[in-house]
Amino acid sequence: MLGNDPVLLTPGPLTTSPATREAMLRDWGSWDAAFNRITQSVCADLVQIVHGENDYVCVPLQGSGTFSVEAAIGTLVPRNGCVLVPDNGAYCARIVRILERMGIAHVALPLGEDEPATAAAVEDALNRDSRITHVALVHLETSAGLLNPLDAIAAVCKRHGKRLIVDAMSSFGALPIDLRDGGIDAVISASGKCLEGVPGMGFVIVRRTLLEECAGRSPSLALDLHDQYVYLRKTAQWRFTPPTHVVAALRHALDRFAAEGGQPARGARYTRNCAVLIEGMRDLGFEPFLRPDVQAPVIVTFHAPRDPAWRFADFYAAVREAGYILYPGKLTQVETFRVGCIGAIDANEMHNAVAAIGRTVAALGLHVR
Amino acid sequence: MLGNDPVLLTPGPLTTSPATREAMLRDWGSWDAAFNRITQSVCADLVQIVHGENDYVCVPLQGSGTFSVEAAIGTLVPRNGCVLVPDNGAYCARIVRILERMGIAHVALPLGEDEPATAAAVEDALNRDSRITHVALVHLETSAGLLNPLDAIAAVCKRHGKRLIVDAMSSFGALPIDLRDGGIDAVISASGKCLEGVPGMGFVIVRRTLLEECAGRSPSLALDLHDQYVYLRKTAQWRFTPPTHVVAALRHALDRFAAEGGQPARGARYTRNCAVLIEGMRDLGFEPFLRPDVQAPVIVTFHAPRDPAWRFADFYAAVREAGYILYPGKLTQVETFRVGCIGAIDANEMHNAVAAIGRTVAALGLHVR
Ligand SMILES: Cc1ncc(COP(=O)(O)O)c(C=O)c1O
Ligand SMILES: Cc1ncc(COP(=O)(O)O)c(C=O)c1O
Repeated sequence: MLGNDPVLLTPGPLTTSPATREAMLRDWGSWDAAFNRITQSVCADLVQIVHGENDYVCVPLQGSGTFSVEAAIGTLVPRNGCVLVPDNGAYCARIVRILERMGIAHVALPLGEDEPATAAAVEDALNRDSRITHVALVHLETSAGLLNPLDAIAAVCKRHGKRLIVDAMSSFGALPIDLRDGGIDAVISASGKCLEGVPGMGFVIVRRTLLEECAGRSPSLALDLHDQYVYLRKTAQWRFTPPTHVVAALRHALDRFAAEGGQPARGARYTRNCAVLIEGMRDLGFEPFLRPDVQAPVIVTFHAPRDPAWRFADFYAAVREAGYILYPGKLTQVETFRVGCIGAIDANEMHNAVAAIGRTVAALGLHVR
Repeated sequence: MLGNDPVLLTPGPLTTSPATREAMLRDWGSWDAAFNRITQSVCADLVQIVHGENDYVCVPLQGSGTFSVEAAIGTLVPRNGCVLVPDNGAYCARIVRILERMGIAHVALPLGEDEPATAAAVEDALNRDSRITHVALVHLETSAGLLNPLDAIAAVCKRHGKRLIVDAMSSFGALPIDLRDGGIDAVISASGKCLEGVPGMGFVIVRRTLLEECAGRSPSLALDLHDQYVYLRKTAQWRFTPPTHVVAALRHALDRFAAEGGQPARGARYTRNCAVLIEGMRDLGFEPFLRPDVQAPVIVTFHAPRDPAWRFADFYAAVREAGYILYPGKLTQVETFRVGCIGAIDANEMHNAVAAIGRTVAALGLHVR
């Protein structure tokens, strides 16, 4: 039965390894030293993945990734701050909504959904508006699968003395992020993305000296990263009941991550997956939405066929029947669908997925080109 | 190995059934209809447990129970409201901290940690302070294990036209809660307590007409119950990535709950567990902190022995070695420790736990009386 579950080609939750799920077969006491050691080793590993050992701490947080994004903004940005948000998709727009709720001033830098934020555009915005204190950047805009140039933007922020908060939800672990250059103040991600854990917790890796200035600033108790950090440091425990099984699964997923060869190896596997996917889909006549140079190897947006018979729901159902779960598009202007290439899958799965999509196209009699 | 894991005598996370954990062995797509059906059936079951079918909806929320408490307060209480908080423990105090963060006026009704809130005291407070619009009541104060008289307080709130928000974190499923009498506006609990799921999600069961008035009120996006509700109703999906495995485990736990005979049967098993525990511990010389008439059958606080050799950490470690995980005390004035009697355990486990505690007392040479 398990062997027959469909493969998730979605950007999290994704297909995890059976052994990672089996790590959830034990119950853990949230007060127990054995569990506290898991938390500590998970946090230590996460900091190391982005080379933050010296100056950064990892604060885990219950909830989905958005909870950690909101917690980072609410804890790290003062109420009288002003945040620049390069906007090329739905997750950027979500940051703007969070800022609106909090009543924090912000400046959106509107971009096309296929147009990366450039360092020059960020620099220009900083020069134009001296109120800006922080930049909130989505590293990999999962809406289209678009990569924003993190290092170049971090360098600009550093030069201008602006704080940089990075939503690296769907890039963390798959793409290189290096905190040693000093331009990044906080990086956010979650358990159930490229680390290949199960969903249920997020985390923020933040410059220790910055976090320590932020006592009492969060408008929320549950989402107060500073409070969580201080409590964890004092007691080795999460402030409120941790998702123990999710944390245990992430511990196992991180062991697999290290065994695979860390971020370079994970990134290389996803890159192969992505290449096989795009090549196979092109052969079937499907066109990727993004140019190759801005396409991240995590999720690929394809134009929907122009065929009037096209209905995503039917296509989805038929491909699911063949064993693969696709993802709907999230773009505002053009009709698209998405195929993820992350999770505990390799190029074989991508070949098989493409084959299943091909059979579906034929069975539904769709004209793709 | 699994068989040798210690039994959790803690108020959540607790010992779940192996089959509930095995429900986490599958991955689910968060966009997939199969998962959406799980969410819907879980919510329907939760509403039914407290007899809210007619007028209430269940809104699930990612995160620990506190996240749902904060979401309920932030979404349901207007900024110019004023909340009465009967205070007999740490979870009441946490509600006060949440209100403080939100800048919402509140009146604490200070009580002893062994002193239930009475309907008369609540009525008196309402009469004395006409600013009060809402009452936030912790049904079962887990700090000591104290039961507050929900029905009587709900009747007072109804008579006075005040909104009642109930933190039923550690009572939901074990103790009767009946929404049909109409005095309760919202009930909050979580997956990993008396429903015997794993931790990682909370939920709020709230009067539909009340929730529908609350659009855009929440100061938080992630914790906006109204937004979550509207999105769920429209799409059958959670707004942000759900903790899929935790939800699947809860689905299984709810099947077991129904098979056992629902709340009455669950409550009866815990009551037996509690009686065996207290009787056995008394025989060893341990005195419960609470009077029997206010002791809920969920977690029992015992006075620590007066023996100067007593150290909870040593006692905990030795009892853990014998297979049982205890819980520290959470009271402010007296030295105590706690033993939970909830989870997938029965009177046999409680007998064995008491025996293990007895052997530990002897081995450590503690004088209990
Ligand atoms: C870039 C980005 N930011 C934020 C999120 C939100 O994460 P979650 O759905 O876990 O709240 C996602 C989810 O895929 C994402 O890809
Ligand atoms: C009465 C009560 N309220 C709130 C909470 C907080 O729940 P969590 O630790 O899941 O945030 C608890 C936890 O045990 C509780 O017992």
